[in-house]
Amino acid sequence: MTHINIVEVGPRDGLQNEKQPVPLATKLELIQRLAASGLSTIEAGAFVSPKWVPQMADSLAVLQALDLHGTINYPVLVPNDKGLDAALDAGVREIAVFGAASEAFSQKNINASISDSLQRFESVMKRALAANIRVRGYVSCVVGCPYEGTVAPRKVAEVAKALYEMGCYEISLGDTIGVGTPNTVTDMLDAVSEAIPMSRLAGHFHDTYGMAIANIHTALQLGVHTFDSSVAGLGGCPYAQGASGNVATEDVVYLLHGLGYRTGIDLAALSDTAWFIAGALGREPGSKYAKARGARAG
Amino acid sequence: MTHINIVEVGPRDGLQNEKQPVPLATKLELIQRLAASGLSTIEAGAFVSPKWVPQMADSLAVLQALDLHGTINYPVLVPNDKGLDAALDAGVREIAVFGAASEAFSQKNINASISDSLQRFESVMKRALAANIRVRGYVSCVVGCPYEGTVAPRKVAEVAKALYEMGCYEISLGDTIGVGTPNTVTDMLDAVSEAIPMSRLAGHFHDTYGMAIANIHTALQLGVHTFDSSVAGLGGCPYAQGASGNVATEDVVYLLHGLGYRTGIDLAALSDTAWFIAGALGREPGSKYAKARGARAG
Repeated sequence: MTHINIVEVGPRDGLQNEKQPVPLATKLELIQRLAASGLSTIEAGAFVSPKWVPQMADSLAVLQALDLHGTINYPVLVPNDKGLDAALDAGVREIAVFGAASEAFSQKNINASISDSLQRFESVMKRALAANIRVRGYVSCVVGCPYEGTVAPRKVAEVAKALYEMGCYEISLGDTIGVGTPNTVTDMLDAVSEAIPMSRLAGHFHDTYGMAIANIHTALQLGVHTFDSSVAGLGGCPYAQGASGNVATEDVVYLLHGLGYRTGIDLAALSDTAWFIAGALGREPGSKYAKARGARAG
Repeated sequence: MTHINIVEVGPRDGLQNEKQPVPLATKLELIQRLAASGLSTIEAGAFVSPKWVPQMADSLAVLQALDLHGTINYPVLVPNDKGLDAALDAGVREIAVFGAASEAFSQKNINASISDSLQRFESVMKRALAANIRVRGYVSCVVGCPYEGTVAPRKVAEVAKALYEMGCYEISLGDTIGVGTPNTVTDMLDAVSEAIPMSRLAGHFHDTYGMAIANIHTALQLGVHTFDSSVAGLGGCPYAQGASGNVATEDVVYLLHGLGYRTGIDLAALSDTAWFIAGALGREPGSKYAKARGARAG
């Protein structure tokens, strides 16, 4: 049985996009429960401006409470040299950098052109690699952009290749607004995999229009073996009020186990964790699986 | 571009499984809006005991308000000879009969063994076909059963074949509890299509565990060109409180249009219809598409 890697992004990408901040203790219990359910990579925080992203202001405290030298990998998002300084001080072993395949999105999201953002990462990555820190690269808007519409697969391949050549060990391809369907996802992966081995690509699908599981199944068939997802579907979609964002980890694991893949994840424990964090946010989990299983004690 | 047929089951299979009944006028406005959005087959009611299924007690009144001789097809569920009498009196052009691939489900759901239920349909179907009425066959529990667990593809093929040979022009294969994943759906369709041409099969997928869109995509790739779905995901799941049932028509149409298929359906109008009926039930639509698009005037 093939093993599929899940990168749990709920505590960072998820909570960062929740309006309601959760207390440090809740965040730590969430991460501890995710680890106990078998997740081996859990994105734990971001060294970004607390003015812009108050939900991540306690990232240092989160990392100080975690065992950064154990078997579980806790990557942290780092946008610039200042963020890297904080990550180095905190003793993280992996960071993530974030680029876009859409020029308009790059300008609006990080106030820099794509090429300027890549230049900025170059210094961050050189220093990180010199300190023996792994770097993961995110590329957003790999199918569509909220400002530009359709994004050309060739453009995604260019940005992904630039990050890969700078030294990212893996490139996570994000359908940020969830507009992809299996055909457009296939076109995109065909283009990117001409530049980067499929084994170095991860799928990061949003379920805004309900297509995430079908897109993940398609990417699996093409040979992608790593997927990002968010417990309870934490995060929502900043571009459509009330819409879904990150695909829920529970639904992804249900698909993978159904298809006969190994993940190392205890789906029942994960579902309980989804109910735990959804309860802390005063709502139901965003996954079909957790809703069908129902809330349990624990 | 290939045309894919959508059989809209919201006004029957959907509303029948909603606890809250809707007034006749709301039901008629729903059907009128569905027709206006381009759906050409709309399951409009059921001639079943109003004691057991009060939500369908107004089916005759619904049919009397519809144009049964126009371009839109309004099939009606008929469980027995008594139901057929009512359907004939009402002047319907198409009925549907309902069998199960699971012995335990058949016993619990219609209080008859599979073979007894098939015998019962034989008389209904002979009379219907003699009156020049088309008959569609539903087979439920085609992947799993809430009482028996896994259902063998061979068993599904047997029941489907029996209904087909009795004269059903199409067999709708229902994953009643939504446990299927692309591999089990493939195994099932492989077995059934050995007995019945793929062009005579329809997929009826429930989204209980979030797998419906991936399963529909899989069935499409295998050559299935007809799918049942329910506007706004009407219906829920009677086997898991708070869980999803029928896949939402909006999400299916989003997939199909994304893949380049034709459906003849105006997705924006359909989404407005989802908000209309969800509003009548005092909740949000169950589709990701309608939530992402948001409620609009209309």
